[in-house]
Amino acid sequence: MELVLIKLGGSLITDKNKPYTPRITSLQQLASEISLLRNQNPQLKLIIGNGAGSFGHQSAKKYNTVDGFITDAEKLGFCLVHQDALNLNILVAKIFWQANLPVIGLPPVAMAVTHNKKILKIDFSSIENSLSVNLIPLVFGDVVFDRVIGGTILSTDTFLAELAKHFYSQGKYKIRLISAGNYPGVLDRNGQVFSTITKNNYSLVKTALGPSDAVDVTGGMAKKVEEFWTVSSLGIDCWIINGNIPGNLTKAVLGKSPAGTLIKATAN
Amino acid sequence: MELVLIKLGGSLITDKNKPYTPRITSLQQLASEISLLRNQNPQLKLIIGNGAGSFGHQSAKKYNTVDGFITDAEKLGFCLVHQDALNLNILVAKIFWQANLPVIGLPPVAMAVTHNKKILKIDFSSIENSLSVNLIPLVFGDVVFDRVIGGTILSTDTFLAELAKHFYSQGKYKIRLISAGNYPGVLDRNGQVFSTITKNNYSLVKTALGPSDAVDVTGGMAKKVEEFWTVSSLGIDCWIINGNIPGNLTKAVLGKSPAGTLIKATAN
Repeated sequence: MELVLIKLGGSLITDKNKPYTPRITSLQQLASEISLLRNQNPQLKLIIGNGAGSFGHQSAKKYNTVDGFITDAEKLGFCLVHQDALNLNILVAKIFWQANLPVIGLPPVAMAVTHNKKILKIDFSSIENSLSVNLIPLVFGDVVFDRVIGGTILSTDTFLAELAKHFYSQGKYKIRLISAGNYPGVLDRNGQVFSTITKNNYSLVKTALGPSDAVDVTGGMAKKVEEFWTVSSLGIDCWIINGNIPGNLTKAVLGKSPAGTLIKATAN
Repeated sequence: MELVLIKLGGSLITDKNKPYTPRITSLQQLASEISLLRNQNPQLKLIIGNGAGSFGHQSAKKYNTVDGFITDAEKLGFCLVHQDALNLNILVAKIFWQANLPVIGLPPVAMAVTHNKKILKIDFSSIENSLSVNLIPLVFGDVVFDRVIGGTILSTDTFLAELAKHFYSQGKYKIRLISAGNYPGVLDRNGQVFSTITKNNYSLVKTALGPSDAVDVTGGMAKKVEEFWTVSSLGIDCWIINGNIPGNLTKAVLGKSPAGTLIKATAN
């Protein structure tokens, strides 16, 4: 059985320059593409994760939630960051229902616990149960409780990467991880897309990307590539693709060379 | 340490006769009461659960979600019932934040799994972690996945009763369970309040209440009394109180004879 994990990037589904502004047309296009895919491939299992884009990063920066909380204001901030992220998740869910996709929003705050920002435990039961009855879990970057610093933020990328590893370890599925964004793929210093990232050019790619993006509280492209590289090293194909080209996500889901970057850590 | 679990009844916080209509003033009154209580008793641990009232029961009946799902329409219905319940939970959270209460919405769908409507497993980690950092978990009656019938509905009462039993078993807390509703308490056939329910009058009470209320998909007063009776048999005081009287919830939380019914299964 095939299980495809799809990240809908925050930059793709929101206007990152305008706080709390979704890109509705983009979401509708993605929903109708996924709906068609599902109708034509009834056996296909999907997990979707949406980035927070301009819904989550403002409040997350304001309260510096990624670094935990001590004061009452920071605690309330933690709750508000969750709400901001949840609001976008709900909006995505509504658009997907209109396309007849039975998505169920499942917030990581209720499933994952960290220890000084490292994942300690994730309860995957609700995700597993969704898949077993052919519902589509819709996760998102969320606040989570942390045993040391009270709370932190777990990005959609990190959560999806953990899901990919978990389901890989079960051995039941052929897995593919796809991140669709408002970009052509992973870019070199001249703005050219790396078509593949393998052992041969991985250090070159890391140099091109530099350190994690400070504007994005959850790390940006450099961290995404690192996390996907780890997933890919298990033998799982990971794609970072252009989500703006109609049909490109479909190609990626079906394994048909989409426009973007393929990460294949097991290849030279 | 004291842990008080508070149910805010659907009839108290919504207008049961008007679909999707919250009782805002009532919610604000409850929020300001709980906020004051918390300021004056900083050691007090709280878990709050809100009923679905006129937000959840319409769609739940339409799709008969309590009995599971088979068709695509029923699956989408399961998702919509969750959304309806979530919408009210979010509204409650917003009003509570305005009263400086750091509540975090935690949906049972991500924590609990049932087997033919019986609870199979609940992951309590996020609730425990909320309490340990002095945040207030705000749960609600929600859809949950079911290993036999796909999905079902877990009422706020049932979920809170399970939480009470779980935290009781840890032996860390003195626990009290309070249900605040739009009623004076548990009524006999003449509309008089049972001030206490003990071993002596339990069968009389059950006769007075009759079978579970068919209008309420999650069972109504008869089921509430049954579930609280089980919790009470552990030695936990359970109250079913009038939530409309200002100050009454405060009395119940502080153990000071509120207007309503005390369930005490260990007493004659």
